[in-house]
Amino acid sequence: MPLSPRTREALKQVSTATLATALFKRGFRIQCIQGVQPLHAPTGSMVGEAVTLRYIPAREDLNGLDVFRDPTHPQRKLIEECPAGAVLVIDSRKDARAASAGAILVGRLKARGAAGVVTDGGFRDALEIGALGIPAYHVRPSAPTNLTLHQAIAVNEPIACGDAPVFPGDVIVGDGDGCMVIPAHLADEIAAEATEMTAYEDFVAERVAAGASIRGLYPATDPTNLELFAAWRKASKR
Amino acid sequence: MPLSPRTREALKQVSTATLATALFKRGFRIQCIQGVQPLHAPTGSMVGEAVTLRYIPAREDLNGLDVFRDPTHPQRKLIEECPAGAVLVIDSRKDARAASAGAILVGRLKARGAAGVVTDGGFRDALEIGALGIPAYHVRPSAPTNLTLHQAIAVNEPIACGDAPVFPGDVIVGDGDGCMVIPAHLADEIAAEATEMTAYEDFVAERVAAGASIRGLYPATDPTNLELFAAWRKASKR
Amino acid sequence: MPLSPRTREALKQVSTATLATALFKRGFRIQCIQGVQPLHAPTGSMVGEAVTLRYIPAREDLNGLDVFRDPTHPQRKLIEECPAGAVLVIDSRKDARAASAGAILVGRLKARGAAGVVTDGGFRDALEIGALGIPAYHVRPSAPTNLTLHQAIAVNEPIACGDAPVFPGDVIVGDGDGCMVIPAHLADEIAAEATEMTAYEDFVAERVAAGASIRGLYPATDPTNLELFAAWRKASKR
Amino acid sequence: MPLSPRTREALKQVSTATLATALFKRGFRIQCIQGVQPLHAPTGSMVGEAVTLRYIPAREDLNGLDVFRDPTHPQRKLIEECPAGAVLVIDSRKDARAASAGAILVGRLKARGAAGVVTDGGFRDALEIGALGIPAYHVRPSAPTNLTLHQAIAVNEPIACGDAPVFPGDVIVGDGDGCMVIPAHLADEIAAEATEMTAYEDFVAERVAAGASIRGLYPATDPTNLELFAAWRKASKR
Amino acid sequence: MPLSPRTREALKQVSTATLATALFKRGFRIQCIQGVQPLHAPTGSMVGEAVTLRYIPAREDLNGLDVFRDPTHPQRKLIEECPAGAVLVIDSRKDARAASAGAILVGRLKARGAAGVVTDGGFRDALEIGALGIPAYHVRPSAPTNLTLHQAIAVNEPIACGDAPVFPGDVIVGDGDGCMVIPAHLADEIAAEATEMTAYEDFVAERVAAGASIRGLYPATDPTNLELFAAWRKASKR
Amino acid sequence: MPLSPRTREALKQVSTATLATALFKRGFRIQCIQGVQPLHAPTGSMVGEAVTLRYIPAREDLNGLDVFRDPTHPQRKLIEECPAGAVLVIDSRKDARAASAGAILVGRLKARGAAGVVTDGGFRDALEIGALGIPAYHVRPSAPTNLTLHQAIAVNEPIACGDAPVFPGDVIVGDGDGCMVIPAHLADEIAAEATEMTAYEDFVAERVAAGASIRGLYPATDPTNLELFAAWRKASKR
Repeated sequence: MPLSPRTREALKQVSTATLATALFKRGFRIQCIQGVQPLHAPTGSMVGEAVTLRYIPAREDLNGLDVFRDPTHPQRKLIEECPAGAVLVIDSRKDARAASAGAILVGRLKARGAAGVVTDGGFRDALEIGALGIPAYHVRPSAPTNLTLHQAIAVNEPIACGDAPVFPGDVIVGDGDGCMVIPAHLADEIAAEATEMTAYEDFVAERVAAGASIRGLYPATDPTNLELFAAWRKASKR
Repeated sequence: MPLSPRTREALKQVSTATLATALFKRGFRIQCIQGVQPLHAPTGSMVGEAVTLRYIPAREDLNGLDVFRDPTHPQRKLIEECPAGAVLVIDSRKDARAASAGAILVGRLKARGAAGVVTDGGFRDALEIGALGIPAYHVRPSAPTNLTLHQAIAVNEPIACGDAPVFPGDVIVGDGDGCMVIPAHLADEIAAEATEMTAYEDFVAERVAAGASIRGLYPATDPTNLELFAAWRKASKR
Repeated sequence: MPLSPRTREALKQVSTATLATALFKRGFRIQCIQGVQPLHAPTGSMVGEAVTLRYIPAREDLNGLDVFRDPTHPQRKLIEECPAGAVLVIDSRKDARAASAGAILVGRLKARGAAGVVTDGGFRDALEIGALGIPAYHVRPSAPTNLTLHQAIAVNEPIACGDAPVFPGDVIVGDGDGCMVIPAHLADEIAAEATEMTAYEDFVAERVAAGASIRGLYPATDPTNLELFAAWRKASKR
Repeated sequence: MPLSPRTREALKQVSTATLATALFKRGFRIQCIQGVQPLHAPTGSMVGEAVTLRYIPAREDLNGLDVFRDPTHPQRKLIEECPAGAVLVIDSRKDARAASAGAILVGRLKARGAAGVVTDGGFRDALEIGALGIPAYHVRPSAPTNLTLHQAIAVNEPIACGDAPVFPGDVIVGDGDGCMVIPAHLADEIAAEATEMTAYEDFVAERVAAGASIRGLYPATDPTNLELFAAWRKASKR
Repeated sequence: MPLSPRTREALKQVSTATLATALFKRGFRIQCIQGVQPLHAPTGSMVGEAVTLRYIPAREDLNGLDVFRDPTHPQRKLIEECPAGAVLVIDSRKDARAASAGAILVGRLKARGAAGVVTDGGFRDALEIGALGIPAYHVRPSAPTNLTLHQAIAVNEPIACGDAPVFPGDVIVGDGDGCMVIPAHLADEIAAEATEMTAYEDFVAERVAAGASIRGLYPATDPTNLELFAAWRKASKR
Repeated sequence: MPLSPRTREALKQVSTATLATALFKRGFRIQCIQGVQPLHAPTGSMVGEAVTLRYIPAREDLNGLDVFRDPTHPQRKLIEECPAGAVLVIDSRKDARAASAGAILVGRLKARGAAGVVTDGGFRDALEIGALGIPAYHVRPSAPTNLTLHQAIAVNEPIACGDAPVFPGDVIVGDGDGCMVIPAHLADEIAAEATEMTAYEDFVAERVAAGASIRGLYPATDPTNLELFAAWRKASKR
C-alpha cells in the first residue's frame, strides 16, 4: 500500500511531536528514532516511505576498500535503486564512530529524488551534506569510512534505528525534533488526525501568545474554547 | 529570602564559568547542571529562582492523555502558578527519550513572565521554543509526549537536575556554557564576588588580545598588573 | 621531522573524511578523535603538529585555585610555550563535566600563533572561544573550572584523546567532521595521496550533481570515467 | 490496602519472570527495577511492600559526617521506622559511585524484620550484607560513604528506582533475576494468576526435561497438553 | 563446510584468550562478543557452529503474548530446529532490559543437543538456566518477557552480537572470559595453531609457578626455553 | 616514605568502606577506583604501594605481537621489576574491550611477591587468575590480547584508574567492595584512625545483631554507648 500523495502532503504540514502523540494514543511508545538531529536547516517536514539498509560490525577481511568496486555491494546498489520519494533508513547500531555514508552518496540520493536519509550513526562530509539541502538526520559527524566499522549486509529488511523498529514501507517523518516512524497501515489515519490536532495546537499557540491561560484550553476542557476554535478555523480557513 | 533585584542584575552580567569558580572556592563542585544546552540564542545570562518539578517513570495505567484534563495535574498546574522571574527546573532523570514539555507550555511560561526553563531531558517543538526567545535549556530535542516516559509527581521539592542538587529558591543562572545552581543563601555574596572577578577577567582578555603573556597576569601574581587593572577600572568605569 | 610547509598547505585543502580513508588503506582504524566538534565556524581545515597535555582526576588537596600562581603549573606553562603552528591536544579522559580550558587561555594560544586546540572534554566560555576564530574542538561546553576534575600532570607525552592515540609531533587535522591524527612519519605521503583523492572526489561530486550515476564512477571501475577525470583536471587545473 | 498474608505467601512461590509476564499482559512494561542483582544467595523470593527513600546529589555544605548525629536525618530515621515485612527501596539515581547504605544499617533493617532492601546504586560492606542473609539488591559494591554523593531528602514519596516507578505500598518481589514492582491494587490478582502460570510452567519444564517439544506445549495450543497438565496437577497436588 | 569433529575437540581444549591472539595475528580485532558472561560454571570450552536469531525493537501491535501461539514464530521455530552441536547466537542489540529467552526454551535447546546459547542481552530464569548446565552466556539477568522489547524477526542472517560480526556457521567458542567468533573458513587453522600455543603457554605457566622469569621465556626469545619446551612436550606427551 | 610494616598490617584489618569515610572526613571524595571487583575470593584486605602502568590506545603499526620480544617493552619490563609488596595499578582508560594482562603475567607478579594488581579494564584468563589467589581487581573478564586496544606507554607516572587519581607510592587497599587509594603522606594517620573506627563499628555491628537500635549508637550521640564500647574494648582486647 503506497503512501498516497494526499497523506504525504498532510504529513509535511504536521510536526513529529504531534505525530508522536497520535501514535501514543494508539499504544505506540517507541516509534521515535532516538538521538538523531538534522544536518540541513529543516523547513517543513521530511516525509517518505522507508527503504532500509542494515549494517553489521565490519569484519576486517571482508571490508577492504575494493569492496566498493563490486556493483552488487548492498550500500552502493541501494543508492542507485532507492525509489524517488523514499527515505533511506540505515541501521548503524547507534555507532557513530565511523560514517554511515558521505556527501557523494547522499548527493546521488538527492539527484535520484529521495525524500531523505536517516542513520542512527553519523555522516562524514557533514557540512557538505547540510549544504545539499536534502533532509538528512544523524547522531553526529564522523570522518572515518564506513568500512572501518560497518559492513552493509542487507536491504529492505525490518531493522532497528535509534531504538525504533522500522519496517520497509513505514512512513518516516522528520523535522527539527528528529524522526518518527509511522506504521504503514496507519499512515492515512494518523495523518488525518494529526492535521486536526495541528489546527487546534496552532489555535492554542496563538491564544497563549495573546495571554490566554492553558486552563480549559489545553486540553479543551472548557467548551467555550471549542467554540472559539470553530470560529478561528472558519476565519483562518483551516 | 527572595532574590534581590540588585543581585539579579549583577548575575545577568557574569558568566556561568565565573560563577562556577566562585562556587568552587567555597567547596562547591557539583552545582553545574551537566549536559544542557540552550535552545535560544543566549544574549546575557538567564537568572531566576528555581521552582522545581519532579518526574518519575510513567506507569502506563496512570498516564493516559486524559490526565491533562485534570486541572490539578502537577505539570499543568505549575505552568499556571510559576512566579514571574522564576526558572522552572525539571528533574527528568537525564532521560531525553520523551519530552519534558513543548512549545505551548513554554510559551505560556513566557507569557506569565518566567525567567526561563531547564530540563535534564529534552523539549519537543525545539525550534519553536528557540524562536520564542525565552531562555530554555535541555539535553536534546525529543518529539514524544512526556506521558510516554515521565509522570509529573511533585512540585517544589529538592530535586536532581543534570547531576546537580536543586533546592526551590536556589538561583539558576544560564548562558552559552549551560546552567549553574547557586545556593540561595550565597546568591548575594557570589554575585558580588563574580562581578569583581568579571572585571578582572575582562581586563585580562583585553590584555591577552593585545599580546600580553598570561604569566603574572592570570592570576595576578605580578603586582604591576593589579596597578594596570586599577587604572583600567577607572578608565572603563568598571 | 617537522611538518613541511608544503604538506601543511596540502592538508588544509583536504577533508578529514578523505584523510581517514587514506589512513584506513594503510591499516589505521583509530586515528579519529571521537566525538569532538568545532566551536568556531570551520572554513578550511585546521592543521598543526600535536603538542600534548595530560590531565588526571584532580585530587582535592593538590588542586586549589592557588596552584595557578605557580609559574611551573603544566597547563599555564604550556600555554606560554606552545609553538606557533602547533595544535594543543588535551587528554581530558573524555570527561566534559569540568572545563579543559577557557577563553583567556585559548585567546593566549591564538595570540601566540597556535594552529588550534582540541580536548576530549569541554571548554568553558564556549561562545567567546568560538568568536575568537582560532580552531577549537571539544565535546560540549562546560562551565566548571578544570580544577574541579582535572589536574594537569604532564606535557608532550603520548596520550589518548577521544579514543585515538596522539604522539607529540603527530599531525592533527580538523574540519566540520572533527579531527584526525596523522602519524608524523606518514604526513607527507598521506597529504599527497589525499590531495589526489580530493581531486577525484571533487570531480565525482560535480558529476553526481549533474545527474551521473555512481556506478563505475565511485569508485572508478569504468575507465571512461578516468578519461573524463583526466580532461576535467586539465580543464580545472587540478 | 495492606498486603494480605495469602498474597505474600503466594508471591514467595513465583518468579519475577512470571510476574513480569502477568504485568505485561495488563500493559505494564516498565515495572522491572533494571540492573540490580542480589548480594545474598536467593532462595525463594523476597516479598514486601515498598517503603521509599529518595536521594538527591549531596551538596557539600549540607552533608558533613555530623548530619548523622541528627536523629531526624531521613536515612537514619527511616531505618528505625521501616515496618516489619516491608522492602526499603532507595532511589539512588542509578549512581553507584557512592554507597546507598552499609552493613550496619542493613543489619538493623534485618533485626527490625524488614523483608529486604533495594537500591539502584550500590551497597558498601557488600560481603557482610550478603552474609546477613536479608534479601538485598544493588547494582554493584561501592565503598564511599553515601554522603559523598547522596543526600537523603525524603521518605515514602513515589520514586524512580532502576527506571521503574515505585509508589509506597507497591509490592516488591525479588529473586535471582532481580526485582519487579507490582502496583498495590493488582497484587492479589497478579499473585493468583502467577501461581497458575507457575504451575503450568513447572509442568512444561518437567516435560521439556523429559524430551518433549515445545510445539503445542508452550504455549498450550495442543489441547492434549492441557489434559496432561490437569492430570499432572492432580498427581502433584498443585 | 561443517566443523570437523577433530577441530571441535581441539577447540574445547584451548582458551578464548589464546584464540583471540591467534585471530589478532591474522588481523582480526573485533571477534570477541563483548560483555557476556557465563550463567553456568564453565568447565572446558563451549564450541559450536553459530545459528543466529535477530531481534528488533518490539512494536507493540505486533508483540502480544499470543504471537507465541503461531508455530512459525521465528524464536519458537528456531528452538525446535537448531541443530545438535550448534550454538544459538542472539542479536539483542546489547539491550538487556528485557529477556532474550528463559529456562524453558534453553532447556529445550539442551534437550535437542545444542552446544550452547549466547545473547548480548539477558536471560530470565538465570539461576535455573545456570543449573541446567548447558553453556549459556549473557550480559545480566533480566526478568521481563522478550516481547516487552524484542521482536524475533529473522533467523540465520549475519548479525551483530556484543559488537562482533557473527555469520551463520562461524565457530563460537566460550569459556570463563566470554565468547570468541572464529570465521568458519579459519576454524581448522586457528584450532591447530591455538593448540600449539596452548602447549607452550602451559609450559610457561608451569615455569613461572616454579619461579622462572618471563624474560626470554614469554615470548621465547631465549632458545634455551625452546629446548626446555621440547623436553617438556616429550615428557608430558603434549 | 615507604609504607611502614605497622601501617601495612593495620590496613589489612580495616575495610575500604571505613577508609573511604576517613578520607571523606579530610575532604577526599574521589579516591575510590570505581567499578572494579575482585577475581579472587577476598579474605582480608589487599595492601600495597602503587606502582603504575599507563596504556594509550594501540596504534596498529606499533603493536604487533613481536613487540613483546623487546625486553624493554614497558609492560613486560615492569612485571619483572615490580617490587615485592607493591600493587600494580594499570590505567586502561576504563576500556575492558581488550585485556590489560593475563594469567602468566599475573602469575609472575605473584611469584615475585607483589601484593596485588588492579586495572580499570579487564583481565584475560580470569578464572586462572582467580585461582592463583593473588589479589586482582578488574571490571570484567576480557579475552582479546592487550595489543588489540592498549599500548603500554609509561611506568610510574601519576595516572587515572577508575576515575581515581593514583600517584606512584600511594597506598592501595582492596577488599570485597573494591579498591581505595590513600595518598602516601596520609597512610599512617588514616590507618590509625580507621583502626579506631573499625573497633567501634565492630562493636556496633554486634549490638545491632543483638537487637539494639542505631539511635544514639551509630553515631555515638548517646554517651552510654561510649561507656559500653570502652567496656567492650577491654573485654575483647581491641
